[in-house]
Amino acid sequence: MCEANAYLLKEGREELLMESVDVIEPEDERTWRLVGIFGDRKTVRGRIKSMNLVNHKIFFEEDA
Amino acid sequence: MCEANAYLLKEGREELLMESVDVIEPEDERTWRLVGIFGDRKTVRGRIKSMNLVNHKIFFEEDA
Repeated sequence: MCEANAYLLKEGREELLMESVDVIEPEDERTWRLVGIFGDRKTVRGRIKSMNLVNHKIFFEEDA
Repeated sequence: MCEANAYLLKEGREELLMESVDVIEPEDERTWRLVGIFGDRKTVRGRIKSMNLVNHKIFFEEDA
């Protein structure tokens, strides 16, 4: 399975937002909807900083 | 390996942009940098429409 973990970068730290994310979709300009492999959902406010699929990591950061 | 294929949604069609994408990073507000598993690079202008990691698909769409 190729799901990834989503992290929020906050003051230099990686804060785990959600494990086993399957789907990432924009909800609006600054909000992202995450859907996990079990159908669990979470909304993240911020922007995508980077995604590294081979390492299964997605990083969000809060807007400046 | 958990890389994905990147597509551009254009007039209802899926146009393959790049295979085996590992890293996705914003270059600016409307431009994304894709890096493939072999280090190949591509820049995409548009926004992320959706990502489905389990299905290895990333969809971009051009700005309206």
